[in-house]
Amino acid sequence: MTGAGLDVATDARSLEAARADKSGQRATGRPMALVRAHSVADVQQCLRIAHARGLPVVPRGAGTGLAGGAMGGAGRLVLDLAGLDRILEIDAADGIAVVEAGVLNGDLNDALAPLGLWYAPDPASRAICSIGGNIATNAGGLLCAKYGVTREAVLGLSIVLADGTLLRTGRRTVKGVAGYDLTALFTGSEGTLGVIVEATVRVRPLPPGAPVTVAAAFPDVEAAASACSAVTAARLAPSILELMGADAFSRVADFLGPDALAGTPAADVAPGESFVVAQCDGRGAAEEAAGVLAAFASHGGRVELTEDAATGERLLAIRRAFHGALEARGSVLIEDVSVPRSALPAMFRAIEAISARTGIPIPTIAHAGDGNLHPNFVVEGDEPDDAVWSAADELFRAALALGGTLTGEHGVGVLKRRWLADELGPEQVEWQRRIKSLFDPSGILNPDVMFEPGMS
Amino acid sequence: MTGAGLDVATDARSLEAARADKSGQRATGRPMALVRAHSVADVQQCLRIAHARGLPVVPRGAGTGLAGGAMGGAGRLVLDLAGLDRILEIDAADGIAVVEAGVLNGDLNDALAPLGLWYAPDPASRAICSIGGNIATNAGGLLCAKYGVTREAVLGLSIVLADGTLLRTGRRTVKGVAGYDLTALFTGSEGTLGVIVEATVRVRPLPPGAPVTVAAAFPDVEAAASACSAVTAARLAPSILELMGADAFSRVADFLGPDALAGTPAADVAPGESFVVAQCDGRGAAEEAAGVLAAFASHGGRVELTEDAATGERLLAIRRAFHGALEARGSVLIEDVSVPRSALPAMFRAIEAISARTGIPIPTIAHAGDGNLHPNFVVEGDEPDDAVWSAADELFRAALALGGTLTGEHGVGVLKRRWLADELGPEQVEWQRRIKSLFDPSGILNPDVMFEPGMS
Repeated sequence: MTGAGLDVATDARSLEAARADKSGQRATGRPMALVRAHSVADVQQCLRIAHARGLPVVPRGAGTGLAGGAMGGAGRLVLDLAGLDRILEIDAADGIAVVEAGVLNGDLNDALAPLGLWYAPDPASRAICSIGGNIATNAGGLLCAKYGVTREAVLGLSIVLADGTLLRTGRRTVKGVAGYDLTALFTGSEGTLGVIVEATVRVRPLPPGAPVTVAAAFPDVEAAASACSAVTAARLAPSILELMGADAFSRVADFLGPDALAGTPAADVAPGESFVVAQCDGRGAAEEAAGVLAAFASHGGRVELTEDAATGERLLAIRRAFHGALEARGSVLIEDVSVPRSALPAMFRAIEAISARTGIPIPTIAHAGDGNLHPNFVVEGDEPDDAVWSAADELFRAALALGGTLTGEHGVGVLKRRWLADELGPEQVEWQRRIKSLFDPSGILNPDVMFEPGMS
Repeated sequence: MTGAGLDVATDARSLEAARADKSGQRATGRPMALVRAHSVADVQQCLRIAHARGLPVVPRGAGTGLAGGAMGGAGRLVLDLAGLDRILEIDAADGIAVVEAGVLNGDLNDALAPLGLWYAPDPASRAICSIGGNIATNAGGLLCAKYGVTREAVLGLSIVLADGTLLRTGRRTVKGVAGYDLTALFTGSEGTLGVIVEATVRVRPLPPGAPVTVAAAFPDVEAAASACSAVTAARLAPSILELMGADAFSRVADFLGPDALAGTPAADVAPGESFVVAQCDGRGAAEEAAGVLAAFASHGGRVELTEDAATGERLLAIRRAFHGALEARGSVLIEDVSVPRSALPAMFRAIEAISARTGIPIPTIAHAGDGNLHPNFVVEGDEPDDAVWSAADELFRAALALGGTLTGEHGVGVLKRRWLADELGPEQVEWQRRIKSLFDPSGILNPDVMFEPGMS
């Protein structure tokens, strides 16, 4: 890469950091170099060189992925997009923003808030994850049932293709149907079809008024899951509906300490109880929250309602601390299955059965409003062993049998590619590979991700 | 096609009907045959034969398209999907429905309403258009600014590919990111990549309470457009925000007659005034409607608000009658540009200037909540002549110059393919053609649509 004018790091510390994401996993070996892009031209230059020499490139945003989609292993060039961090435009009248890929989700929202606007896709990691990474994984989060996933917020993209050419897709209008939807095709493509460098996203008015928060403790996780399904069935649409299983809740409570819970309904959760937090926003939030409260109560929940926004935010902070709490105490394998919402209780039953049979603790939280569960397999030692992967295999099969998916929002990455054909079937996987070959014929873009090696 | 067990028509009347859609245009020559599919197996069989013999196939739903996307011309086989009309499943608890492609949008909503559910994508033609056609064009409608376009409602598809194989994409869950989003790629592909035969769609709870409707008359269309832009800028999100220019309104009023308007605010619209109808729904509809009313009044509107749902529905029926009113009185070229919402007044100015310069009447309505305009060029004689197309060319250039698109919701079809590269640029069109070639290497699927001939 010498002479190319690129910012290239090869020191051990940079390379070590680029081997891992937030999944707790690590690539085999160290990447050959880390290229820190500071402009779209840098990304193009890097890919031109990689293309000419046949070097595999791993695009990387903020490194907060949970599926091993941005881990640089031996022989890989890691292309770091964190330096593309400019908010290029906010157009309040039209409700759009144009940002570079490395802009953090939280930073965009900080810039929007004074204008009464927000960018709705809301991963739990929003303070530290990048918009480009969110788009590359079609990230979800806490607000999807009401406000949609990342795809719904992306209007257009600038993408550097495998040979370094720049492709612009999409538009600045709310509607537009000229040609195939390449914007949607690249959204969720996990860096395997091109490198997203810029995005035009839709921003929304902040919901009027303060949100109303309902918290409830349930004697068991199945009752909690049934209560959440009942909320959907009652045609209520809270903006947030988060469920924490008893084990998940107690690990977070231990991690945060009693001060973090004091004065909130979370302080009253008894050992062995599961915890649910719902939030309603917009006009009529109070009326909707009353409906949620009634649904929880009729399913055996001990309920509390608060109109205090600060208390609501503290309750959500407890939920958002889940990943950090587990990460701080050792290794975990974070899973991400999603099922039709009515199957939520059955999926929790299946997880408890797998945990009981294998002896592996699986604290679980769920974005219950959209049927997306994050079972976390607690791992002995640094890496999941065969027993953990075998338990995960059972989990995936159970989710598929319930009409669900392997991954609701984290992506396939390296960690779930083994099961992709189980979900999609060999016919669709073959079409997906053909699309990959069309955009990246020499296979240099994130080659370890999404597809099993040696099958094309 | 003999011996294939297919329902094939070659009578003049069937073939003549298959030459046209609702654009008012007609293909050159008659198709060779009309194949009426009654099952997915029929579609597969038809495509296997067409593939083996190299016969070009035009998939066709209810024939309500407005861009010439389903017109069968000389040498074409028209594949009619209207017979695939079964609603296969409605799962109220999970909020999904599974339908065959020929099910009419209105029929699905009739089946959903008793369950308190609805399918949100709402083209003005909803009573007569098919879900499959809606998906093939990624149809919009009156409710998109608040409830999204068709793409947001489609979770999964069954597609018959060019060689007759059946491909299933997507899922039954709210979230899911396993692999590339082929469902989105096929949505809006206008029958050029495969034939959509079945869809799993998301359905929503009907908004609680009655809608509140606000109507306003404005002295000129620019004031009306500015008032609509002000609604967006005021962070209000009515479910419907429809603008009818003075010429458009008076043509509909003449067509429907005074009884259709009597007792509604539409009866008070003076000659030369433009008309706007907004509707707010859900909890807090009254409060939001009050905000809309204030925005209209401050831009010079004579406003009326009604909480009577029947009156609101009558006002929307006036808007929905626009296409029928023009169609009944002669030929029109229906256009479909979309611009960023703040550019709505400028786009109306451009349309008035084009009309003044060319002498062609261009009555125009707009889905003002999302910046999507339908200028209708009134045509002398049966077909648009060069003068009309030249005026349309000016229209497209004006929309693109304002950051807009050629087509907000109708699609490219035959009628707008000439301008596709002006919007997308040659680089992106080339990638779109490569995707077309990947899925349809022999080019038998709707070969007249989307791309200019002889450029691949």
